[in-house]
Amino acid sequence: MKLVHTPTGFTISHKNRTVFEHSEASPALYLGIGEGNFDMYRGNFDITDYVIERLPLRQFKVDSFERDGQEFHSIGFYFDGKEVIQMIVGETAESRLKAEFEAIDKSFNRFWMRVAATEEERVFGCGEQLTYLNLRGKNFPLWSSEPGVGRNKNTYVTWQADVKDKAGGDYYTTNYPQPTFVSDKKYFCHLETTAYADFDFTNPEFHELQAWDIPQYILFDAEESYPELMTNITDVFGRQPELPEWVYNGVILGIQGGTDITIEKVENAKKAGVEVAGAWCQDWQGIKMTSFGKRLQWDWQWNKDLYPGLDTKIHELKEQGVRFLGYINPYVLEDFPLYDEAQAKGYLATKEDGSKYVVDFGEFYCGVVDFTNPEACEWYKGVIKSNLIDFGLDGWMGDFGEYLPTDCSLSNGVSAEIEHNKWPYRWAKVQHEAIEEAGKTDDILFFMRAGGTGIQGYCHTLWGGDQSVDWCLDDGLASVIPAALSSGLMGNGIHHSDIGGYTTLHGMKRTKELFQRWAEMAAFTPIMRSHEGNRPGDNHQFDTDEETLTHLAKMTKIFTHLKPYIKDAVALNASQGVPVQRPLFMHYEQDDEAYEIKYQYLFGRDILVAPVYNQGETVKRLYLPKDKWVHAWTGEVFEGGWIEVDAPIGQPAVFYREASSYRDLLDGIKNA
Amino acid sequence: MKLVHTPTGFTISHKNRTVFEHSEASPALYLGIGEGNFDMYRGNFDITDYVIERLPLRQFKVDSFERDGQEFHSIGFYFDGKEVIQMIVGETAESRLKAEFEAIDKSFNRFWMRVAATEEERVFGCGEQLTYLNLRGKNFPLWSSEPGVGRNKNTYVTWQADVKDKAGGDYYTTNYPQPTFVSDKKYFCHLETTAYADFDFTNPEFHELQAWDIPQYILFDAEESYPELMTNITDVFGRQPELPEWVYNGVILGIQGGTDITIEKVENAKKAGVEVAGAWCQDWQGIKMTSFGKRLQWDWQWNKDLYPGLDTKIHELKEQGVRFLGYINPYVLEDFPLYDEAQAKGYLATKEDGSKYVVDFGEFYCGVVDFTNPEACEWYKGVIKSNLIDFGLDGWMGDFGEYLPTDCSLSNGVSAEIEHNKWPYRWAKVQHEAIEEAGKTDDILFFMRAGGTGIQGYCHTLWGGDQSVDWCLDDGLASVIPAALSSGLMGNGIHHSDIGGYTTLHGMKRTKELFQRWAEMAAFTPIMRSHEGNRPGDNHQFDTDEETLTHLAKMTKIFTHLKPYIKDAVALNASQGVPVQRPLFMHYEQDDEAYEIKYQYLFGRDILVAPVYNQGETVKRLYLPKDKWVHAWTGEVFEGGWIEVDAPIGQPAVFYREASSYRDLLDGIKNA
Repeated sequence: MKLVHTPTGFTISHKNRTVFEHSEASPALYLGIGEGNFDMYRGNFDITDYVIERLPLRQFKVDSFERDGQEFHSIGFYFDGKEVIQMIVGETAESRLKAEFEAIDKSFNRFWMRVAATEEERVFGCGEQLTYLNLRGKNFPLWSSEPGVGRNKNTYVTWQADVKDKAGGDYYTTNYPQPTFVSDKKYFCHLETTAYADFDFTNPEFHELQAWDIPQYILFDAEESYPELMTNITDVFGRQPELPEWVYNGVILGIQGGTDITIEKVENAKKAGVEVAGAWCQDWQGIKMTSFGKRLQWDWQWNKDLYPGLDTKIHELKEQGVRFLGYINPYVLEDFPLYDEAQAKGYLATKEDGSKYVVDFGEFYCGVVDFTNPEACEWYKGVIKSNLIDFGLDGWMGDFGEYLPTDCSLSNGVSAEIEHNKWPYRWAKVQHEAIEEAGKTDDILFFMRAGGTGIQGYCHTLWGGDQSVDWCLDDGLASVIPAALSSGLMGNGIHHSDIGGYTTLHGMKRTKELFQRWAEMAAFTPIMRSHEGNRPGDNHQFDTDEETLTHLAKMTKIFTHLKPYIKDAVALNASQGVPVQRPLFMHYEQDDEAYEIKYQYLFGRDILVAPVYNQGETVKRLYLPKDKWVHAWTGEVFEGGWIEVDAPIGQPAVFYREASSYRDLLDGIKNA
Repeated sequence: MKLVHTPTGFTISHKNRTVFEHSEASPALYLGIGEGNFDMYRGNFDITDYVIERLPLRQFKVDSFERDGQEFHSIGFYFDGKEVIQMIVGETAESRLKAEFEAIDKSFNRFWMRVAATEEERVFGCGEQLTYLNLRGKNFPLWSSEPGVGRNKNTYVTWQADVKDKAGGDYYTTNYPQPTFVSDKKYFCHLETTAYADFDFTNPEFHELQAWDIPQYILFDAEESYPELMTNITDVFGRQPELPEWVYNGVILGIQGGTDITIEKVENAKKAGVEVAGAWCQDWQGIKMTSFGKRLQWDWQWNKDLYPGLDTKIHELKEQGVRFLGYINPYVLEDFPLYDEAQAKGYLATKEDGSKYVVDFGEFYCGVVDFTNPEACEWYKGVIKSNLIDFGLDGWMGDFGEYLPTDCSLSNGVSAEIEHNKWPYRWAKVQHEAIEEAGKTDDILFFMRAGGTGIQGYCHTLWGGDQSVDWCLDDGLASVIPAALSSGLMGNGIHHSDIGGYTTLHGMKRTKELFQRWAEMAAFTPIMRSHEGNRPGDNHQFDTDEETLTHLAKMTKIFTHLKPYIKDAVALNASQGVPVQRPLFMHYEQDDEAYEIKYQYLFGRDILVAPVYNQGETVKRLYLPKDKWVHAWTGEVFEGGWIEVDAPIGQPAVFYREASSYRDLLDGIKNA
């Protein structure tokens, strides 16, 4: 790093990139005082801030010192003649640039830092973003929440969701926000805070990073290439382990309704030629009916009434090569056994006065297991180990994590407002450790939608959350692609989504075509898993007709055919953090167009996928970066640019590199 | 006034009311720097602000001096050791409290002042507010704009209007904002600025007044009663003249379509017993068809094609007691004669580089007559005098005034952002002076929807703007009532609305019932005037059937019957500024409930009106303050509280005071 300073300003650069530019006229740091308001309704937040003060910190003083043979700079920022905050800047042992903050005046709870930018710069990341890949030109509030239904104020579905449930969301709403971005200057920047944050990329000259707390530090590093940058990023945040071998054996069928139905549906699928890796029954612990649709009974143990004989059938299925997966989340249903036990032991979050606190999840109420209490974590790990793993589950959806209300009281004494964004991380850690302690990391698959800083090392795979069962860009099939790419850039290289989507409300019904297009995309992701949706009766399902089964069979054949290729990509993700689904620019960094393509991706190094995401489309227009690309169905070779190819149902627009070392395998896609 | 100060704070009070409380810990004044963005689409604004700095001004120094025998205090506010703004406080000759501001540091363009408040305090005003009467608990952006279609994000109409035209609006959107409020402590407070402002009444301890400029001054005064306060307020802002005598003679029928249609419709109405005071033909200068509906040809001269023979018919109608009214606004249609003339003379606003600037009004473009240029004002007065008054018009709708774009350039060199909110005032002044110079103030009626500080002395009557032709609270019949009451408290005591509403879009169609209920309300306002709406064919009209004509006839008989009473109320408004339509608390200030009633009003001192504003309602629940109230239809006497009365079509819920000196006249309502 380099610090150059004059009496009225300083510049900090790192690996030839300017990071901070501070001058009295244009300061890099502002502190302030705000009164935030968090209005939560079933995981949807209406957040407002009354900013009482926002003070430019113009005056500064630089002191330099040595620590462990390294040069550090302590920059004191002054306001009204008094030092209010100190920033200690230096390189870490890994040569990253780190600036630690220490508040001298503790009265400030708002922080704005300007990171130097250039007008053409593009930035990516900020967790899992479903609407934008390049984030420039917008601001991104970073707060874990329900992802929103529709996510676009211009659509009927969003409007209805807003009016009825305050649930419509917007372009930035996400289960997984992270105060980290990646720049096309091939650096990443991370602000270490779990407070509400907002990264504003609208200004041509700087990125303004806001946090509702004084962050611990800001971290930067740059590399010569994007894959190297991914390794660096995952050195910081952790890496996902490899997937269990069985996951590559076919689709995980989302089924509900009991033991017999599950077995019957699996059999039917197999008969139709579908490669089945597992059955995922989220209702394994029973259901509740609400006006939203079928909801689950949140008491995390086998429900003998709905799943009679599952304790033996689960092993029979496994012998037949079909794993059984369930569901859990970090809340316990009021007045049910787990709740009562947790309540008695003091493992639940409380009101400020220590009294009972439950959260409204939509016509039922639950206690929040207090993961800031190590004993509560141990207890919940025990629940997972005995009720899920020992029972025989080979995986589960580890749902939720976004609902920590800001007005509850936690065991560690930290404000729930500060803990909120950390909750998904805590929830992932509990699950990961339970699996690890059971010695099953290689064999159990769990997937989460919620996320945050550090989840990379604990959550084994993300799923894209609750897409609408429709074609809308911001919340339908298409939205899964930027979601995979942005979260991949944060180091979550294994991503997948509910085949066919989930949210079935406000008149939406899943069509056959949508299901099929989604399955076609899923065949080119590391995991194939279907979902019936919240109102299964309104949706086209994998077994609704023979044609759908046959089509799905073909897609699972392609998926299993690609097993060696996908396994290698997953292994690379586990060892070096290079995501399985990658934005085009990761390997074509000289290609300007590649940075703006958000609805296509590279699947591993050699496959390029351009999913059809518009209803009725059978000719696909897409962009190929300069290379030699073989069209998977016709063998025709393209050299780059915007092209059109036929993409009827069953033949998704997929290409692979002529120069691929997997060439023989890839040539076999068309006959899989 | 009284100023008490200690080394760390001061308190300013006036007539026993605490106005400012300043301390170093909790300052009364903040200055800052913001970058505002005004995105205008056909009069609808999307306004955002990036507040770069917001600085508390804690340090202060008080100097006292004498001027003309009065004591004044100069309070310097300091930041970072430097004086940044001076506030000179004292009493005016009329004993009002006035604090003038002078910026020492000119770099600030954001101003926030805290006026002392108490938790239970209620406040009113801020121009013409259509959703709230008591403004406490909300903030009110003050920027003249289209009023919004629907004005409630939860309604289908608002959503459609937003999606299609960015036109949905919200609870605060209004044609007439004014940075003035009235408190239930019987004081008013006015911030003298025409910049974008936002009055925030959400804090229990203060009202925070924001302006995007340093205001000239803030003015307070208090009185012992609300009527006295109205006189005080109108001493400051001006008063409306009395109405022309002919206005009391019946309804002004909104008609379109040409000379023959007008005469025929007037004749039909008269035959049915309707008392007709005038025919208002907004299309007197011709029409344009757009996708919105019929629009007018903005070239402000008699259109011989559509209105053949009008030059003589206008006088014949007048002899028959029917006045003819037209329409004008402050824009001129591109490439038509008035535009060409104004353009040639340099009377139009321009782009910053002096080149042509036109505004999009929805499929047609117009030049903005530059009212900051005195010659342009004289020219436009001339247009009004020759084309309108000399032609024989006895009145007109003086439409618009809200569309001054912030990026045009004006003759006086002042930023259009600062002139924007002043434009309605300038437009009113031009019209008023044209009429006055023609010696017709007593005989010509013009009405405006746009407004702002000072319009009171120039705009002879407000109309409530473009209500939807439906029952929605925020933009339908009901919304006209808080509009009349809030603008009345600003000194605009003469208010009325389009009978039946105007905006006919997104599936709305005006029903017979709505037209009738609206007519029933209008009979108890100072002016009755109907409108066909923007899509006349979709709307029930006054002459759609016999029953509607008969009902309207009855309402006009009541209106003309009340002429002496209304005239006296209008005269009081002209002499003392007490509005014709008054909130209940104006005369029942001890009654807590009266402050929260926004959909009832006093009509003059002795009549109480509770319009039916819900579809299908025939029994009206309403509140009567403690008094003796005679029900107009049954003669039953009520003494106050919440009651229910029958209110079938034709018998609006109207009461009058038993003790009224107009008792005989009022007893005659039922037989009118």
